[in-house]
Amino acid sequence: MSELLQKFLEAVRRKNPLIHNITNYVSVNDCANVLIATGASPIMADDINEVIEITNLCHGLNLNIGTLNTRIIETMHVAGQVAGEDKHPIVLDPVGVGASLLRRQTAFNLMRAVPLSVIKCNVSELRILTRDTTETYGVDANKGDELNRHNLPLILSLAKRLARKYKCVVVVTGIKDLITDGAMSYLCHNGNSLMSKVSGTGCMLSALITAYIAATPEDTIRAALAATCAWSIAGEIAAERMGDLDGNASYRNYLIDALYNLSGTELQRRANYEIII
Amino acid sequence: MSELLQKFLEAVRRKNPLIHNITNYVSVNDCANVLIATGASPIMADDINEVIEITNLCHGLNLNIGTLNTRIIETMHVAGQVAGEDKHPIVLDPVGVGASLLRRQTAFNLMRAVPLSVIKCNVSELRILTRDTTETYGVDANKGDELNRHNLPLILSLAKRLARKYKCVVVVTGIKDLITDGAMSYLCHNGNSLMSKVSGTGCMLSALITAYIAATPEDTIRAALAATCAWSIAGEIAAERMGDLDGNASYRNYLIDALYNLSGTELQRRANYEIII
Amino acid sequence: MSELLQKFLEAVRRKNPLIHNITNYVSVNDCANVLIATGASPIMADDINEVIEITNLCHGLNLNIGTLNTRIIETMHVAGQVAGEDKHPIVLDPVGVGASLLRRQTAFNLMRAVPLSVIKCNVSELRILTRDTTETYGVDANKGDELNRHNLPLILSLAKRLARKYKCVVVVTGIKDLITDGAMSYLCHNGNSLMSKVSGTGCMLSALITAYIAATPEDTIRAALAATCAWSIAGEIAAERMGDLDGNASYRNYLIDALYNLSGTELQRRANYEIII
Repeated sequence: MSELLQKFLEAVRRKNPLIHNITNYVSVNDCANVLIATGASPIMADDINEVIEITNLCHGLNLNIGTLNTRIIETMHVAGQVAGEDKHPIVLDPVGVGASLLRRQTAFNLMRAVPLSVIKCNVSELRILTRDTTETYGVDANKGDELNRHNLPLILSLAKRLARKYKCVVVVTGIKDLITDGAMSYLCHNGNSLMSKVSGTGCMLSALITAYIAATPEDTIRAALAATCAWSIAGEIAAERMGDLDGNASYRNYLIDALYNLSGTELQRRANYEIII
Repeated sequence: MSELLQKFLEAVRRKNPLIHNITNYVSVNDCANVLIATGASPIMADDINEVIEITNLCHGLNLNIGTLNTRIIETMHVAGQVAGEDKHPIVLDPVGVGASLLRRQTAFNLMRAVPLSVIKCNVSELRILTRDTTETYGVDANKGDELNRHNLPLILSLAKRLARKYKCVVVVTGIKDLITDGAMSYLCHNGNSLMSKVSGTGCMLSALITAYIAATPEDTIRAALAATCAWSIAGEIAAERMGDLDGNASYRNYLIDALYNLSGTELQRRANYEIII
Repeated sequence: MSELLQKFLEAVRRKNPLIHNITNYVSVNDCANVLIATGASPIMADDINEVIEITNLCHGLNLNIGTLNTRIIETMHVAGQVAGEDKHPIVLDPVGVGASLLRRQTAFNLMRAVPLSVIKCNVSELRILTRDTTETYGVDANKGDELNRHNLPLILSLAKRLARKYKCVVVVTGIKDLITDGAMSYLCHNGNSLMSKVSGTGCMLSALITAYIAATPEDTIRAALAATCAWSIAGEIAAERMGDLDGNASYRNYLIDALYNLSGTELQRRANYEIII
């Protein structure tokens, strides 16, 4: 591998970026602890009357539409505009974007109005964002929407199109993860299927990506690749730790623990990705 | 036992129902992970502007008044109406209904307006719902309001009355759990007192019941019985796992883990309930 | 030590006070489980239409400005007024008060309008509250704002000034914790640096302090001292339990577990504090 992922992880631990999260109330606590585990600091703030100051104070912005409401949508736009002016990285997680018109409108409006660094989605959400389908979905990827060898060319072309259109990096998660900026693309083979058994692992990855890019904003795509590999490797380490009585609650703890203990050298050693075209 | 609970658990794992939760922000993450542990999928959405679509998309609706606000009450009514038209099962958890007029009004309005499948409450909440008392309470059952041999006849008669009035199943939780549709009644002996030491175990049971009924809507009372037994058995298994240093945080994880690992045969084997009259 | 901390812990377990929390949605679940772990009962309610009844029902009020919004600020004022009329202890946690004008205004307005028993803050928040700085911060203490031997005289004088001005106890957390009512002051040496690696440990302490004071309202400063020592000792016990694979997620569980298992005699035996002037 020519890319060195190690330095991205180490930059987060060294710079301790402060990450502003406007995110859903389901996985918000896990997102906070994931940010701390990786060496960043979280702040959650969603009121329009303080958002400009909070965004200014921070080094990156994580927008997540998981439990949307009208009040928060307005705040997201202001935060996005301020972070954009400050040249801070902004990540959008369009959770369940197929589930309602409100989510689709919110996601499209944010993509148009805010200079995003990364859109992080699953295959079902990607298909909605690229209007490849009009079917609606829940918050999880639809069955049949898993990234696999057969649909990889299609999914890659959709992801590239989205990345080019919004001049950002697109991260598509699944059994394998795809990272593209429309020109360069990576496929990450790390991960474990247990990750889909914990609520909000996708939200946690979005927070993590924000921290990595905030620490190394000059190399967004590889910072996103490093964050994605780190999270998937944590998923592998956590799976190795599972005992007979453990289930998804213990796995959640092991995941965050593994991220907490992950060193730059271990990330580098275990990372399993390839450049794809 | 003539009833086979096993098939209810297995139906959830096979059908993977999508459950819409409008619930409090205290235990919401645990509810999401409980739904995943049992083989269902959670979605949380409380904005009036997307609730019709979300409810339509789902197979069951879980309404919980734990941290109520005016905005969410309106959403609950719309969701309840839509779920009712769709013939989807709806569960109401009147958390702390004795604690305020707002909660009482909200619970009574929902009971009148929405075709509930199940009302899940503790003894104190049951007494408020049946106007057996005007005393107010917190979110936990009042001391002296534990279900026991002495007050069982009274509690059963209140639960039956509530079930008949709203044509639904009533689940009353405590050291023992009571399940009735006004005609048939069950008393479940499974459980462990540690369950009361974890915030939101009642909310989690309501989410679980919704999943079970969504998977087997044609047999609401026994689906509710199976869910209640499954949760109480998870409470027993979790208690068996407790080490000297463990407390209520580890117990919470063990509970969800146990539910994750619970098989249909183990549910059937450990279930300890009786038909009562 | 002339003070006996043991009785404060035992009073909480015996009286089981009901604590009303208007707090942020990030650490709210942990606050609930911490209250249960210590022998109190939590209720979370933030709607203006039920707050008077909820506050009346409870024995103590915990106000936390972590994820503020305009709706909740109004509720906090009503709750504070009602709790004050009821002579119930009120704790204010001015989370991230340096981060925005909204937080500063809210904290100052609450300090002026509400008869607080305790203000619980970190050094950075203390400096904002005493106008010792105009710098802004995130939710964590600023680097260089750790309480140490060199800055202790300054920090103590700021804390005393704040305590005298608002006629309350001030608890300043850090590597060491300071507790003062403006006349009497304590320095607690217990604790572990891992506590700063879990989101919301400060919020959890505020909830815990509320429970202790609600159980022993006639001795606010020593109840606050006992709660602070108890939490820091739980932090030590949790650290002793950490294995090679454990990280901040397991540590969070161990913390709450340790509080759950902490006895009055162990609190008394492990407490390491001194009176300072």
